[in-house]
Amino acid sequence: MSLNPQYEDIGKGFVQQYYAIFDDPANRANVVNFYSATDSFMTFEGHQIQGAPKILEKVQSLSFQKITRVITTVDSQPTFDGGVLINVLGRLQCDDDPPHAYSQVFVLKANAGTFFVAHDIFRLNIHNSA
Amino acid sequence: MSLNPQYEDIGKGFVQQYYAIFDDPANRANVVNFYSATDSFMTFEGHQIQGAPKILEKVQSLSFQKITRVITTVDSQPTFDGGVLINVLGRLQCDDDPPHAYSQVFVLKANAGTFFVAHDIFRLNIHNSA
Repeated sequence: MSLNPQYEDIGKGFVQQYYAIFDDPANRANVVNFYSATDSFMTFEGHQIQGAPKILEKVQSLSFQKITRVITTVDSQPTFDGGVLINVLGRLQCDDDPPHAYSQVFVLKANAGTFFVAHDIFRLNIHNSA
Repeated sequence: MSLNPQYEDIGKGFVQQYYAIFDDPANRANVVNFYSATDSFMTFEGHQIQGAPKILEKVQSLSFQKITRVITTVDSQPTFDGGVLINVLGRLQCDDDPPHAYSQVFVLKANAGTFFVAHDIFRLNIHNSA
């Protein structure tokens, strides 16, 4: 496999599709369908998990309902195995919490004409330093 | 190749080594040695370039001298081809500019017993939204 020239559209399209599901409390658990049963890594606020069953557990453990999200930038790059590396910066607000900047990195891997999330790193951008 | 169990140390070690070179104005151009002549992608503030020669040009075009940098978090994941995905969040101040939060994503690829930077996405975290 080689570079996918559509990486920019794939990245932007995925981000839109992923958050449309994640941000809908009634639908959130369905993000599990983006991950592989065994070959997906998620690091959520420093907590590392592997595989769709554990990722689903993590998603279902999130206690907030409503998310208000504003995407600031989506940077995508093609990978040499036909996948896409995506870096999202944005701001989100959960229920009545204060809004926070965050970053989320995804690596999409091509598989049988579609993509799955092989890597997912989420962090709120909270800096202790001045 | 398979998962490298040392991914956490490799990620942290790389970040330390990379910024020690990048943050030293006399040494900065040497970061080019981390990249492949053809197979490295860099997205710098949304500007996309490929290959060490163009990456060197970009690095040499940066006008600041002094960088004060504080790393907030380094999250690493192993990739199935023996590489490491790294997400860095931190704050930096260039010369007398105001300090900014930033994020930088690296993908290290294993090659002949060492690693090169296959992907590099840098963004200051500047959000227009409230």
